[in-house]
Amino acid sequence: MIKAGIIGATGYAGNEIVRLLLGHKDVEIAWYGSRSYIDKKYADVYRNFFQIVDAKCMDDNMAALADQVDVIFTATPQGLCASLVNEEILSKAKVIDLSADFRIKDVAKYEKWYGIQHKSPQFVEEAVYGLCEINREDIKNARLVANPGCYPTCSTLSIYPLVKEGMIDPNTIIIDAKSGTTGAGRGAKVDNLYCEVNENIKAYGVAGHRHTPEIEDQLSYACGKDVVISFTPHLVPMNRGILVTAYASLTKDVSYEEVKAVYDKYYDNEQFVRVLDKDVCPQTKWVEGSNYVDVNFKLDPRTNRVIMMGAIDNLVKGAAGQAVQNMNLMFGFKENEGLLQVPMYP
Amino acid sequence: MIKAGIIGATGYAGNEIVRLLLGHKDVEIAWYGSRSYIDKKYADVYRNFFQIVDAKCMDDNMAALADQVDVIFTATPQGLCASLVNEEILSKAKVIDLSADFRIKDVAKYEKWYGIQHKSPQFVEEAVYGLCEINREDIKNARLVANPGCYPTCSTLSIYPLVKEGMIDPNTIIIDAKSGTTGAGRGAKVDNLYCEVNENIKAYGVAGHRHTPEIEDQLSYACGKDVVISFTPHLVPMNRGILVTAYASLTKDVSYEEVKAVYDKYYDNEQFVRVLDKDVCPQTKWVEGSNYVDVNFKLDPRTNRVIMMGAIDNLVKGAAGQAVQNMNLMFGFKENEGLLQVPMYP
Amino acid sequence: MIKAGIIGATGYAGNEIVRLLLGHKDVEIAWYGSRSYIDKKYADVYRNFFQIVDAKCMDDNMAALADQVDVIFTATPQGLCASLVNEEILSKAKVIDLSADFRIKDVAKYEKWYGIQHKSPQFVEEAVYGLCEINREDIKNARLVANPGCYPTCSTLSIYPLVKEGMIDPNTIIIDAKSGTTGAGRGAKVDNLYCEVNENIKAYGVAGHRHTPEIEDQLSYACGKDVVISFTPHLVPMNRGILVTAYASLTKDVSYEEVKAVYDKYYDNEQFVRVLDKDVCPQTKWVEGSNYVDVNFKLDPRTNRVIMMGAIDNLVKGAAGQAVQNMNLMFGFKENEGLLQVPMYP
Amino acid sequence: MIKAGIIGATGYAGNEIVRLLLGHKDVEIAWYGSRSYIDKKYADVYRNFFQIVDAKCMDDNMAALADQVDVIFTATPQGLCASLVNEEILSKAKVIDLSADFRIKDVAKYEKWYGIQHKSPQFVEEAVYGLCEINREDIKNARLVANPGCYPTCSTLSIYPLVKEGMIDPNTIIIDAKSGTTGAGRGAKVDNLYCEVNENIKAYGVAGHRHTPEIEDQLSYACGKDVVISFTPHLVPMNRGILVTAYASLTKDVSYEEVKAVYDKYYDNEQFVRVLDKDVCPQTKWVEGSNYVDVNFKLDPRTNRVIMMGAIDNLVKGAAGQAVQNMNLMFGFKENEGLLQVPMYP
Repeated sequence: MIKAGIIGATGYAGNEIVRLLLGHKDVEIAWYGSRSYIDKKYADVYRNFFQIVDAKCMDDNMAALADQVDVIFTATPQGLCASLVNEEILSKAKVIDLSADFRIKDVAKYEKWYGIQHKSPQFVEEAVYGLCEINREDIKNARLVANPGCYPTCSTLSIYPLVKEGMIDPNTIIIDAKSGTTGAGRGAKVDNLYCEVNENIKAYGVAGHRHTPEIEDQLSYACGKDVVISFTPHLVPMNRGILVTAYASLTKDVSYEEVKAVYDKYYDNEQFVRVLDKDVCPQTKWVEGSNYVDVNFKLDPRTNRVIMMGAIDNLVKGAAGQAVQNMNLMFGFKENEGLLQVPMYP
Repeated sequence: MIKAGIIGATGYAGNEIVRLLLGHKDVEIAWYGSRSYIDKKYADVYRNFFQIVDAKCMDDNMAALADQVDVIFTATPQGLCASLVNEEILSKAKVIDLSADFRIKDVAKYEKWYGIQHKSPQFVEEAVYGLCEINREDIKNARLVANPGCYPTCSTLSIYPLVKEGMIDPNTIIIDAKSGTTGAGRGAKVDNLYCEVNENIKAYGVAGHRHTPEIEDQLSYACGKDVVISFTPHLVPMNRGILVTAYASLTKDVSYEEVKAVYDKYYDNEQFVRVLDKDVCPQTKWVEGSNYVDVNFKLDPRTNRVIMMGAIDNLVKGAAGQAVQNMNLMFGFKENEGLLQVPMYP
Repeated sequence: MIKAGIIGATGYAGNEIVRLLLGHKDVEIAWYGSRSYIDKKYADVYRNFFQIVDAKCMDDNMAALADQVDVIFTATPQGLCASLVNEEILSKAKVIDLSADFRIKDVAKYEKWYGIQHKSPQFVEEAVYGLCEINREDIKNARLVANPGCYPTCSTLSIYPLVKEGMIDPNTIIIDAKSGTTGAGRGAKVDNLYCEVNENIKAYGVAGHRHTPEIEDQLSYACGKDVVISFTPHLVPMNRGILVTAYASLTKDVSYEEVKAVYDKYYDNEQFVRVLDKDVCPQTKWVEGSNYVDVNFKLDPRTNRVIMMGAIDNLVKGAAGQAVQNMNLMFGFKENEGLLQVPMYP
Repeated sequence: MIKAGIIGATGYAGNEIVRLLLGHKDVEIAWYGSRSYIDKKYADVYRNFFQIVDAKCMDDNMAALADQVDVIFTATPQGLCASLVNEEILSKAKVIDLSADFRIKDVAKYEKWYGIQHKSPQFVEEAVYGLCEINREDIKNARLVANPGCYPTCSTLSIYPLVKEGMIDPNTIIIDAKSGTTGAGRGAKVDNLYCEVNENIKAYGVAGHRHTPEIEDQLSYACGKDVVISFTPHLVPMNRGILVTAYASLTKDVSYEEVKAVYDKYYDNEQFVRVLDKDVCPQTKWVEGSNYVDVNFKLDPRTNRVIMMGAIDNLVKGAAGQAVQNMNLMFGFKENEGLLQVPMYP
């Protein structure tokens, strides 16, 4: 049994880490960090935990926390983890950062896209990008894991096999993504009010969303050359879920079976990636509340393109679930421990 | 490890039984009955179960099923269970019926409100009304459990302590209930189409809903005399959840503390009933996906009334979860086995 | 052609006044007041008005405004209108106040329920309660109209005929109301975020909501004696609409036809009140975007109660539409001018 | 004053034609055709029209109808209009067909994509494609107008100027479209039930949706050569609205101002097409209930692509509104007559 601390426990991702860890037999939560709610009962912020969690919210003193726990989750805005982490902390506790601070190896690129100065560039090289299906072995030995973004998780896993195998031209990739509104966080903004989001859909961050370089990096590693993509996220009137629809030109004439074989090669042994049956399109509802990624593809001979699709629960595989999966790898637990929730439908 | 069969596995309640039993360590599902989808893969009907459930749908041959399993769940329309069950079946397997067939002890009353003839009146007396918090001991020994309706579960548990203790005049009780749309089932009807339900709210079954006598019966047992109530259900644009707002006149002048003490007397030891803190109103979202019932009350000295409120997930505590809780009691498992899901928020 | 000014034009009710007045042939909007957005283009706040409204937002200088317009709408928080209005303003322009400042004739009662001091008690007596169907003649001559609250509009019109005719015992009235989320306003609060409201329902303001005394006053006027009611509002995951379900004990044995005749007596000549056909329950969607009030009732001989139901669009008949209807009466326009929108479905 | 008949009046598009024509000063509805509801009061099918429409539903006898009206709207499934229309009908009444029967000039292409035999190929050449902003003059003289599909309307208007001016390579066009659920019609199917659509998003018709050739045809006409595109529609949990996000490679290096000038060239004089301000992305809610098309674009120098966006209300500009706009042109009414609804927000 290890102890875990969460910094940013009152955001939606933090709340989901709590939900998952409460069902994890090897972990006990020792610290519910939330600067905004210090000393308030955690279950008074999220009453779903009434009579389940008795703890009060703590501050974000990462150094003090590192003395008390084995693993620290930082579910905080960009920049905070990088400003708090240091060698002493990392020598005491493993850190899983759900922000973007350690996802991008090129610090200048990070600073450009995020518009802030990186406070801990010395740990960027060491940090492991926590996309379990791709970096499993490195994650096992990591002290610091950069938990992938929600869009990059869904996008990369939907596309990766075909890029890796050279089946598509990576510079023709266009990713059109749709996200539920938990992805916008719990900040009190007019744009995220019920009446503004409900019965509405819009694109945002067009040609400039910060998850773009993160996806490009992963695809570049896959094919060994620089990849530039178009990425457009959309806000959808639902709480949870990301759906990715990605387009790319095929490099050669291929059959359904050939492409299917490539997906199977990478995902047959992956419990959390489900390659759907032929002609079945992923739906976000089919993975809700679970750590699954549902992917599929459709060939379009008319345009010589393939349409690749993927669906996740953005709070689970896109955030908290993947963080727990990373923790399981880092501590030698069963990789699916605490992550066997069957999707809830409807 | 026992074996379970489900008749009506492709309705929303049946689907939820599957979800819950898959996480139950003492039960294996041996039969996914669905007359409409015989021989079709169950996971092709509910793709949330893709790569999780491999079985195909079976018919509703209850006699054959009784030879193979220890417990049978009937999640079917009114009348079906009563038309299938018989002494031989009950001698082989325990039956938990999620329909109304065995909930009402007065067969004539059942036939009047439901407009059908009862096909197995001989088992009505024996059947135990499966509201675990009230009939726990009887359930433990039952062969046939009538799993309570969704509205009656939420209504009865919200009101029961004050009726039982004589704090309210039972004939002044007015129950205004609001339900998510899974309560309307998965039948293809225009009234239940997305565009008809979305951005809309309506009452239905006014002064004639079939759950009325079921609630009245339970309250009558509680106070030892016949109770007649007003019950009005409403359809709310959300998938899951029932909220009950109930009104009644107080029989005497009481303080918050006195009423609270009554709720605590009945629910302090009940894991699945949470009496919320003072002035906190239940919200359906706080119990979503879980077996909890959140209840609370508010005194209104101006009118000498008390407003009693309750919230459940209609598919869990209002159907599948309570059925599993009943099964646990009937088979001597831990009462909360397979039911420890933390509510999912948001 | 008269000129209108709106103070509070960037709230949801103000935005709806703009929508309606743009389609009104006798009115021109001369002032879009919004303290929060001064000098910002109105259509940059509400882009539905792009290329339709070119004006910029103005302050809330009511005195300056009165020099320029014939009618002033105040769609502002409680207290503001009372703090701005004065004799000089009223001598120049008619004022329609959408806040509660002038709805309650007993100033002490207002101050108790709203928790603020009334700044203009001298105008309370003069102000006319703008429920057109009841106070039509007085409204025609008013300088200052108190536009009714959304819940009181729907509640009063649903119940009024039976109280007026003595068919129900007014002190048994229980009103259970359900509102879409525009009723909560456009303030940036966590409780009103999409993810908090969506897939959720809750009661609020139980036994203490400020619309209670407003409803009680109107019903008291109707029956000539003090009425005390129970009123419970609920927040529903939809943008627009209020549904009222009201319960009361009948004073004598009556038939459907007798009750129907009473409703018809009051509403047969009212264009905006539709008494639905027998057994048809109002649905908020059927009045969306329109000024209609749909009402109906159901007798329940078992309990000797009648269930009265009503549905409105809270932003139209519950706010902006009724304000325009009042304006039409005050200026001698056709009462339905600018209010002939057919409900939009779905 | 002309008379109009509607065949298919009880579908969602037919219902919307009724809503719009009721507010049109030059048209009277003389025939509410609906094979499914013959002799039933129209307002009993759509109660929003209670006390507004008194008529009963009629059959779909187009020949009889042509004797009584000046214009016939067919809001019916593919194939029906083509099977009913004939020279005699067209000699008596103008026909506006909301189905796809006369949208595609190549009959073989129509038959291939729609999988049915065309019953009136002799009228295909004569029929005018009713995209008013592009074919205005031809529409004015037409007897038979093929009202464009919802996706093609939004897609074509979003892309057309850049294709027409050669600014983008048409064969790189990828259109990712998102639609509200009214687009799926009012048929009682499990897939369109509230609980299946709500909290869910999915692609459908991938690489095979029937609106693909319709869009390709229009873009081909614009650039004078055959265009092949990728088109992927998605089902979004909302009632109304289509959002199009389209991607294409630029043919040369262009500035924001240059592209803006092209959009302005085509749309400056178009009342119903609004080119939004720089960096403002269209939202479906901003056009809800109105005939507007909001379009905008974003240049992405990193990829040398332009992202083109458009939003409509699928039932208005995507169906009924455009049909009325076509009628206005065909009968010499003001083009915007009956179409001046301000978008309803929120």
